[in-house]
Amino acid sequence: MYLNCDLGESYGSWTMGLDAEVMPHIDQANVACGFHGGDPLTIQRTLALAAVHGVSVGAHPAYPDLVGFGRRSMQLSADEIIACLQYQVAALDGMAASAGMTLHYVKPHGALYNDMMASAEVRGAIMQSIAAYHRPLSLMLQATPEADAHREEAAALGLELLFEAFADRCYDDNGRLLSRRLPGAVHSREKMLAQVAQLCDQGSLTTVSGHTLPLAADTLCVHGDNPEGVQAIREIRALVKGRG
Amino acid sequence: MYLNCDLGESYGSWTMGLDAEVMPHIDQANVACGFHGGDPLTIQRTLALAAVHGVSVGAHPAYPDLVGFGRRSMQLSADEIIACLQYQVAALDGMAASAGMTLHYVKPHGALYNDMMASAEVRGAIMQSIAAYHRPLSLMLQATPEADAHREEAAALGLELLFEAFADRCYDDNGRLLSRRLPGAVHSREKMLAQVAQLCDQGSLTTVSGHTLPLAADTLCVHGDNPEGVQAIREIRALVKGRG
Amino acid sequence: MYLNCDLGESYGSWTMGLDAEVMPHIDQANVACGFHGGDPLTIQRTLALAAVHGVSVGAHPAYPDLVGFGRRSMQLSADEIIACLQYQVAALDGMAASAGMTLHYVKPHGALYNDMMASAEVRGAIMQSIAAYHRPLSLMLQATPEADAHREEAAALGLELLFEAFADRCYDDNGRLLSRRLPGAVHSREKMLAQVAQLCDQGSLTTVSGHTLPLAADTLCVHGDNPEGVQAIREIRALVKGRG
Amino acid sequence: MYLNCDLGESYGSWTMGLDAEVMPHIDQANVACGFHGGDPLTIQRTLALAAVHGVSVGAHPAYPDLVGFGRRSMQLSADEIIACLQYQVAALDGMAASAGMTLHYVKPHGALYNDMMASAEVRGAIMQSIAAYHRPLSLMLQATPEADAHREEAAALGLELLFEAFADRCYDDNGRLLSRRLPGAVHSREKMLAQVAQLCDQGSLTTVSGHTLPLAADTLCVHGDNPEGVQAIREIRALVKGRG
Repeated sequence: MYLNCDLGESYGSWTMGLDAEVMPHIDQANVACGFHGGDPLTIQRTLALAAVHGVSVGAHPAYPDLVGFGRRSMQLSADEIIACLQYQVAALDGMAASAGMTLHYVKPHGALYNDMMASAEVRGAIMQSIAAYHRPLSLMLQATPEADAHREEAAALGLELLFEAFADRCYDDNGRLLSRRLPGAVHSREKMLAQVAQLCDQGSLTTVSGHTLPLAADTLCVHGDNPEGVQAIREIRALVKGRG
Repeated sequence: MYLNCDLGESYGSWTMGLDAEVMPHIDQANVACGFHGGDPLTIQRTLALAAVHGVSVGAHPAYPDLVGFGRRSMQLSADEIIACLQYQVAALDGMAASAGMTLHYVKPHGALYNDMMASAEVRGAIMQSIAAYHRPLSLMLQATPEADAHREEAAALGLELLFEAFADRCYDDNGRLLSRRLPGAVHSREKMLAQVAQLCDQGSLTTVSGHTLPLAADTLCVHGDNPEGVQAIREIRALVKGRG
Repeated sequence: MYLNCDLGESYGSWTMGLDAEVMPHIDQANVACGFHGGDPLTIQRTLALAAVHGVSVGAHPAYPDLVGFGRRSMQLSADEIIACLQYQVAALDGMAASAGMTLHYVKPHGALYNDMMASAEVRGAIMQSIAAYHRPLSLMLQATPEADAHREEAAALGLELLFEAFADRCYDDNGRLLSRRLPGAVHSREKMLAQVAQLCDQGSLTTVSGHTLPLAADTLCVHGDNPEGVQAIREIRALVKGRG
Repeated sequence: MYLNCDLGESYGSWTMGLDAEVMPHIDQANVACGFHGGDPLTIQRTLALAAVHGVSVGAHPAYPDLVGFGRRSMQLSADEIIACLQYQVAALDGMAASAGMTLHYVKPHGALYNDMMASAEVRGAIMQSIAAYHRPLSLMLQATPEADAHREEAAALGLELLFEAFADRCYDDNGRLLSRRLPGAVHSREKMLAQVAQLCDQGSLTTVSGHTLPLAADTLCVHGDNPEGVQAIREIRALVKGRG
């Protein structure tokens, strides 16, 4: 089980995230591509940091909404999504190659990620964009009970998928994340570690209502915004490593 | 002798340039990369148009100044120039490859081009940026009496240069373009064609004072902003073709 | 019956709209505020042009989406809409005052306008933003059968409304504009003038199905993007003037 | 002697500066206007915070360079500077008025400030822009031996000036700030307080070479980027207050 984290989200003089603290403990860095964060210099620094720690890099493209940090849904046409993603992925890909690294995957950011999970049209445009890229890249998306359907959509385009689960978020019986507005949406440290262990050992998690939900994840999404997040990453890392 | 032209400088709902009229008559399209013009959809359309006409594509990166169309000098550090260019070149390179095309060269835009010709520091940063790109790309710059020195700077970094001359601009005895504020700065149609013929046949041009200035150019910069420009391109094309 | 038109939507080196041709024939200029078009210099020039022709000016604020020209819906919170509008309105208001003019009203642009008409939440945020502005400004919105309800919403905040009708668009029986994708959505010249005459003389229009729909409009929205639009404005102007 | 500080420089999800800690201890808040920092919501919050603490507000406009935080000189024409400033000042002025506050002055930011002090052309454009604003605002600039000349330039346009000195920066004999690259450019806590005391009591400071330089300042520029800066502000405040 891999650990992935959003990184490189600083912008110009503004810093965000404890990238240097997080990088040693993760496997996959989702690197912002300039549309919600991540100016060219920040991209170079993030790639260099990933290289030092042997971390695999993915592109983390977003809606073109800098002031909203890519967190606000925008009604882009399929053509706009396709072009917009290719631009961001290509920028990161070429900069990674110039840093002696290989870009491996694409994970959409924020509202674009949410829209991808909720809308077949948005997901289709994202898949088309990556499938049309000149060399193969995987798409990282959320592991849900619809994973098989998503895999079929991707296979039709010759696209590989990576499924991620959330270490610290409570799921409902349909495999959706509980809204952050609801109590219990974010796990305590103890519950988080239990969820990680169950995901690793049994390929399932326990939903808010106590049911067992099978969920096959390739990677766990972790957060490095604050010292507590970094500490959680350390503990998840230790737990996951023990399981090989 | 090739013809190169700045293209793909529309942005979102705003159009600029007669790209469709120009593309059939040129050899090299300098494609805007998003920082002074050229949103992702425009880039895709420009690449598709270039492909139809078998036109070679180059990246046309700029200072990050959309409202100023990249025409205002900005004091970027060398590191900022290097990262800023790599981002733009990489974006265009990956989109070109995804369109089945190959990016061949880089020609800086507007104020960045002017600063490159005037400042060894800016030129050095631009050369470093392209030399550090993960695959070889040429740098297109202005043919001047300092061409040998520029070629040496480039050779030290393993970088190839392409030299361009301006078909319609009057040169002074030092090989600089006459300021557009001065009378005679822009040639009449007749003088323009004479200058092109002299550049092709004798590798020289006649300066404002009547002297003959040797100038070895690989390509001629032409302009497609308006119908007169397109007509001029047609005539230059006919003249150049006759010379093989 | 007034004529209003979106103007000042050029941006930097990109021009849009035949502002100079349109301005002599309209009563109200909806001036772009910088978020979808209208850089500071363009704003100054548009205000100066409006002053010459004695045209009343309104702010034409938009979602922060330059590349999408404000035409793509964005999920902003009410707080974001309120702040975003105040910023744009204030910028235009102060620049108008500095040009010796008075800003009279606010008409949201593009997707923000559509969302205002479709969502009570968005409309509420827009009304709050204008009501909270430090001096009274009217809100221009679409005349529909819900006008009384809209007037009540506005009155509760002490806000005046201006209702606009579309000269060239066909309406359905519910008073909505026919989608541009449907045949007959945009009137011929003849039908457009008949619709204007009916709006002026009888305060009604004839819907797509032939019904008479009462519609009280203060102003007609006209378009100055191309020569045909300008010609239409001239004819509408002549027709409206004759009716006093 | 007043204390002024740059505030409101957060942008969207990125935070900058300890505004809440600084605001209680200063007299004048230079509020970012959106071009180098300060999105509309941040502006509203900064104004609200200033209101709570009875702090006077000024506009802190910048070159349009978000990724460079307004710290890179840009070659704008006088017309561009004038329009660009009016837009930013107007946005802040209208938002301040809507928050029940009055905008009092304008202090250019970063590279625009430096260019204003170094170039009569840039300074002239800035002065014209503020003088042309529809109501009187002061311009805050650096107290230097050229203050009388600056005052004359301003008086010719009917413009009032506010002169600021830097509490923590070492001056050379010409009244210029020592470059930050030189040793001793930034004072120790002790020297800073001594400089403040001398400015308050004697209207002079001691230069790097030990000379006494007369310098009449209305306000001291202080920095609230980090806890040390906030502590320094507290101490300067205590010292200044004792002097009435």
